[in-house]
Formats: sequence, C-alpha cells, structure tokens
Amino acid sequence: MTTPWQRRYAQRNQRMSSSIIRELLKFTQQPDIISFAGGLPAPEFFPVEAFRAAADKVLAQSGRQALQYSATEGYGPLRSLIVDKMAHYGIHAKEDNVLITSGSQQALDLIGKLLINPGDTILVERPTYLGALQAWNAYQAEYIEVPIDRDGMQVDLLEEALRAGVKFMYVLPNFHNPGGVTLSLERRQEVVELADRYGIPIIEDDPYGELLYEGEHLPSLVQLDCEHLESRACDGHGYFKGNIIYLSTFSKTLAPGLRLGWIVAPVEVIQKCVQAKQGMDLHSSIFDQMVAYEVAKDGFLEKHVRTLRKVYGERRDVMLAAMARYFPPGVQWTHPRGGLFLWVELPPEINAEELLQDAVQEKVAFVPGHAFYAAGRSGGHLNTMRLNFSNAEPAMLEEGIRRLARAIERRMTGQTTLVAAPAPALSMN
Amino acid sequence: MTTPWQRRYAQRNQRMSSSIIRELLKFTQQPDIISFAGGLPAPEFFPVEAFRAAADKVLAQSGRQALQYSATEGYGPLRSLIVDKMAHYGIHAKEDNVLITSGSQQALDLIGKLLINPGDTILVERPTYLGALQAWNAYQAEYIEVPIDRDGMQVDLLEEALRAGVKFMYVLPNFHNPGGVTLSLERRQEVVELADRYGIPIIEDDPYGELLYEGEHLPSLVQLDCEHLESRACDGHGYFKGNIIYLSTFSKTLAPGLRLGWIVAPVEVIQKCVQAKQGMDLHSSIFDQMVAYEVAKDGFLEKHVRTLRKVYGERRDVMLAAMARYFPPGVQWTHPRGGLFLWVELPPEINAEELLQDAVQEKVAFVPGHAFYAAGRSGGHLNTMRLNFSNAEPAMLEEGIRRLARAIERRMTGQTTLVAAPAPALSMN
Repeated sequence: MTTPWQRRYAQRNQRMSSSIIRELLKFTQQPDIISFAGGLPAPEFFPVEAFRAAADKVLAQSGRQALQYSATEGYGPLRSLIVDKMAHYGIHAKEDNVLITSGSQQALDLIGKLLINPGDTILVERPTYLGALQAWNAYQAEYIEVPIDRDGMQVDLLEEALRAGVKFMYVLPNFHNPGGVTLSLERRQEVVELADRYGIPIIEDDPYGELLYEGEHLPSLVQLDCEHLESRACDGHGYFKGNIIYLSTFSKTLAPGLRLGWIVAPVEVIQKCVQAKQGMDLHSSIFDQMVAYEVAKDGFLEKHVRTLRKVYGERRDVMLAAMARYFPPGVQWTHPRGGLFLWVELPPEINAEELLQDAVQEKVAFVPGHAFYAAGRSGGHLNTMRLNFSNAEPAMLEEGIRRLARAIERRMTGQTTLVAAPAPALSMN
Repeated sequence: MTTPWQRRYAQRNQRMSSSIIRELLKFTQQPDIISFAGGLPAPEFFPVEAFRAAADKVLAQSGRQALQYSATEGYGPLRSLIVDKMAHYGIHAKEDNVLITSGSQQALDLIGKLLINPGDTILVERPTYLGALQAWNAYQAEYIEVPIDRDGMQVDLLEEALRAGVKFMYVLPNFHNPGGVTLSLERRQEVVELADRYGIPIIEDDPYGELLYEGEHLPSLVQLDCEHLESRACDGHGYFKGNIIYLSTFSKTLAPGLRLGWIVAPVEVIQKCVQAKQGMDLHSSIFDQMVAYEVAKDGFLEKHVRTLRKVYGERRDVMLAAMARYFPPGVQWTHPRGGLFLWVELPPEINAEELLQDAVQEKVAFVPGHAFYAAGRSGGHLNTMRLNFSNAEPAMLEEGIRRLARAIERRMTGQTTLVAAPAPALSMN
C-alpha cells in the first residue's frame, strides 16, 4: 500500500531503504551475542573518570559558555589542539584550516553537500567505507571503483579511472575500513601526483591513523601533497593550496558517543563548509567540545592512544591466531597493521549474507562484505565479510571466532535458518 | 581570482555566500555590545548546577553507555520524556513517533533531505525563520510566500498559494520568529483543513511554544490535525496518519549548547528520517542526551520553564516600554505573547541594513528584516528588523533600546559610518 508520504519523498531517497543487514545487526545489542559487526571501541577502556573530572570542571568554571550557542567553526582551544596534533604527523595547518564536525559522518555529509551535483561520479576504493556511500547516495552520486589489494588502492588502475572524469576521489590510506590494509608509501606518492596532474581533489579519511600496532607511521596524503606542491604554492595562511580535504575523529581515540570529528582543508574550503554546517546543525555541542578538550589536553590523549594501541594490538593478534586455528581451509583474511577491522574472503560458494543468519543463531555477528561495495550486491564479492576486533575482550574474540567457524562449516553443509524479531537500531560504522 | 575549489562546488552552493549581516553580527561577541541580534537565551538562568549534577551522575552510573555509539533514533528515556511532554499539550505520540535531532536546525536539514527535489516549491510565511531558508536553499528549494499579520499567516491568501502547487508548507504558529505574532485559533483550524483538503504536508516549527507570557496556550496544528482526522484514520501505532511533521527543541527551555531538538511525525516518516540521519551524523551525542534527560526529568523542566516565563515576560515588558518611550514617531512593532522576538517596522525611508552600521557604532545590534524573506533584499521590507529580548538583562535592554533609538535618529539625519575588522562567527537563530 502506498501512503501519501511515500509519494512525497525526494528522489534522492529512493536509494535509502531498510536493509536486511541492519535488521540482522540489531541483534548485536543482545547481551549474549559476540559482535564483530560494529566499529565500536572497547568501552572498558573509555577514560570515564577523566571525562567526569572534565565535565565537572567545564560546568563549574565555564557553565554558561558550555550551555550557550557558540561558533560554527568549533571551540577555539580544541581546534588549536587539533592543529598541534596534525603538526605532530607532519600536517602544517592553522586554526583557520580546522572545522569541528559532529563526528566524521557529518564531515562526509558536508562534503556531499559542498561538492556533489546529482549524477557526479565519485572515485572510491572497492570495497569502501559504507558510511561514505550512505552519505553520498543522498546526493545522488554515481561511483567508479578502483579495487584494493594488500597494499591498498591499486594505483596502476587509477589513471584510467581518473581519465573517465570524476568529481573527487575518496581514499582511506591507513588500516582501511573495511579492508584492513594500508596504502604503501610508493602508492601514496603516486596517488598524490596523479590527483594533482588531473586536478582531482582527494578526500583523505583517516579515523584510525593513530591506532598503529606494527611498522612505521606512513605520511598522510595531505602531507605528501604539501611537500609535492611546496615549491610552487602556499596560501597566505601558511597552508598549502592543496587538493586534499583530510578527515579524522575523536571517536576511536577518546569516545564516539560525543560525535566529535574534524576537517582539515584549505581556508576557502573551510569557509564554505562553515556556511553549509550553519544550515545543518549551527554548531556541534559546545559542551562536548569543551569536555573533550579538557580530557585530551596536556598529553592525556597521546598517553591514552598508547594504551589503546597495546590493547587493540593484542586483540588483533588474538583474532588472527583464532582464525588460523578455527577457520576451515579456503578462508583467507587480511593482516591489518592498525585500526579496528580485518577483511575475510570465504570460499566462493558461501554467501556472507546467508552466513550471517547462521552466525546470529550461533550468537556471533559481522557485516557481510557487499555492504561496502558501491554497486551493492551486484558488485559481486558476496563471499566476503568485515570483522571488528576492538570491541570484544580477548576470550570473547576467541569464542566468537570459534562460533563463526562453526557457522561457516554449517553453511558449507547447506543448512538455512530463520531470523527472530528485531531490536532497536544500531549504527554501523 | 577563481581558485580550483570554486569550480568544484556543487550547484546548490551558489546561493551560499558570505553575508554582510553575518560579518556585522560578529561584533555582537564584543563584551560592550548590547545584542538584540541572536536568539540567545539568558545564560544567567541556565541550570548549570543541575547540569553539573546530571553529568556527574551519568558518567558515574553509565559512563560506558554515555561514551559509546548509540541508536540513531535517540536515547529511549529522553524520547519517552518527550512523549509525556507532548501529551501534556494534547499531542498523542508514542516513542516510535519521536526522533532526537542535533538541534532543530538538523530537523530542518533532515526535512530538506527527505522531501525537497531541486526546484520544488515550499510555502513559507513572509517573513519566516532564516535557518529554514538556509537549510532548504542547499536543496535548491523555490519558495512561495504567504504574508503574516498580527494574527499570523494570512489564511485568506493561503488557498491560492496551495492551488499553485507546493511540496509542503512551513508554519511557525507560536510567537513567530521573526514576527513575534501568534496564529489565531480560527486560522489554525483553517490551515489544517486547507492542508488536508489539498493533501499538503505541514512542517510545524514550535521552538518557543512553552514560553508563553500572556493569554492561553493554543492547540498546535498537529493536535488540530489529529482531531480533524480522528473520525477517519489512526495508524497501528495509535498516532494519526497525519499531514504534519512537528519540530521542537530543548534549546530555549534547557540549553542550546547541547544541540538537542526533536521531530514528532508518523512512524513511517520517522523511519525515513532515521535512515537519513544515519548518513548525516549517525546519532546525536548520547552523553548530551543522557545528561539532558537527567536534568529535565521529575518535573525539573516544567519548573524551570515557569522561571523562564517570568524572566522573559518581564524582559519583553521592559523592551516594549523602552520602545514606547525612546523610539521616534513612525516606528511600529509587534506585541509578542511569548517567545524571544519582536518585529519592528521603521519608516519606509530607513534601510535597516544601513541602520545596523550606525547601531554597531552605538554598540547595539539587531538582525535586519530582509534576512527573513525568501526573496532576500529583493523581497522589499528593507525597513524592518528583528529584536531579541531574552538575552540582555533589563537595564541593558533599556539602554540598548535607547542606543538603537539614537541610531534611528542618526539615520534619519543621513549620517553613514564604516565598519571595523571582523571577529569569530556567531550563529544566528
């Protein structure tokens, strides 16, 4: 039955439909489920006491400011802290180059609003972050995909895609979501040079860059772009007239519940983003920004990130060892050097979406790989899945992999199952 | 000079440009300026200690939940509190009818994303809330305007506008921003009946409804729509299959800094909104939602609203009395029964945007009226302005009106002035 409202939705929403995956993943909120599905940090390592002290200090000392309307650009000291943080990683920005967003997701929405005309083609990796697809589908984007391998985007296939004409390219160089792979230094340089040659902006999404468990930190695309252009152009703000909009977030290093991310970009882009953000939510919660600043400052964030590296690095190792131990032959997976995810390729005859039904019965959950393809189910790769290793504790990680191995074996025997009633929606990220 | 970025912005952003008003209003952050410009609540009445206790309790008792990702729909207890609040005003919703948004501004953006195709015509009041225009310009909306008078929207002109074909109509029935007027009961009934007859959805924006200083609370459009349709249709959720999306916010009754608003709508509309919001910011800060719930619950919000009614009602009276005393003949203004704003009509030869330059020199600020017209400066009414009476303390209100009166008189003598360097951006609302 068609309701009057259905006829009223804008054309861009025809692609937004309720997803079976989302319905299945609602089960991950049940306490007896071991979930590898979300991109949830380990809650037992949230610095709750630091937040408690910070919230108290902010309200005691600056309560009126923390509760009043504030500037769209974001809280000055937090922007300044981000500038220092970026400088530590070789990105030389000023406060004017930084906009605080309501999580990285808002940055993606903002970029869609700023850059995408209906029908514009965006170059994305195959697979890519589903939150970006969600954000940009609403702007009626089309996509051209460049596959990734164990060294990230296959740069030898990039130039042909760029020649086809794209509005911008979207790259996750560090500990790819969902792929778990890292773009090699050589490829980073090629990506930056090709983007510059074709005049194509890069959206560099780097939510996990600091969560490195082995090897060296590689320079960001924005840093390489800056070095590449240095001899030619610098704007009056001391920041390169670059091709790149860089995104990151406090969600994986401090806490996701506050929804605080940021954009680093040329000043003129930030100014446009500020205008757009005014129409989107006026500003991000100033209370949360002030509290996050109080928590993060004076080296606390760096120290906390060191803890997370250790904890998540161990969890990664536990998951990798359990997979080696329990998964049947014919299953392959990536070896992430950092981040929160790894990517599994099942034998070609196994459909991961069907597997999820068995897995949920075994009380374990994951995200089927097709969710991360711009072409969705028609993009093939139905035998893939993304696993998160940051959320569950080590014993649960091992048990979850054992259950998942059981589900894979069940699926190999051809059993199918039914699914029970849904629970409240969980955001995938 | 055209930069590479300028060529890349999506078409929808051609209308987003830096505004002289916004630049001028940056001065309102200077401490010696008396600002009637923003829609800022009185910070000295923020319940800071209640927030402090609430933040501490939330982090002490549910720190992990408050800092983790959460459901897009919003925090259950807060949605339930909103249901009770709505019921108190005759709006019978269930939790499924409520979505928490990152301020009312996000609700406006969401509605644009959900309903507006490029070129769609939206029926708005003349003047109307500039935040709605900002949000919907980004979706390339066109507008048809129905003027307001002292009883709100001129309903005798509405049917002709509806016949012209519009996607939806946007109405601020209570204590209009910027008009300060209230839609009469008779007109409310006519609006609801006409909208139903023509099958046109209504977006009812009600941020100030509780801030009533004289007379009786009038039923909302959504309540009247429910009664109008009652004999015909109720959906399975006990909520009417109505024409109306109702918006409100905690910004004016608790605190705007946390960016918490809400949408009440039929379940199918809320579900679509949830899908759209996932791509926009995943969810609103769960920490803020939990804190706001702790502050608002057990009757605190109702008690606090009673305080605000008294405080803002007095401020309104002070401003009205000062205007009567100091403004030169030929200046007219509305008498708001509630809310935060009143509307001033200057003698036709005075341009309010030029007046603002003199006013800033006199250390007083306001928003020139043309900002609230869908047609902008070409909409005429350049001799109008919006004044806010909630932010400044009574003595400052009187002093500000005296300064403004001086600026009006200066403008009548034809003096012009120059403007100094800008300060950080202030959100207008």
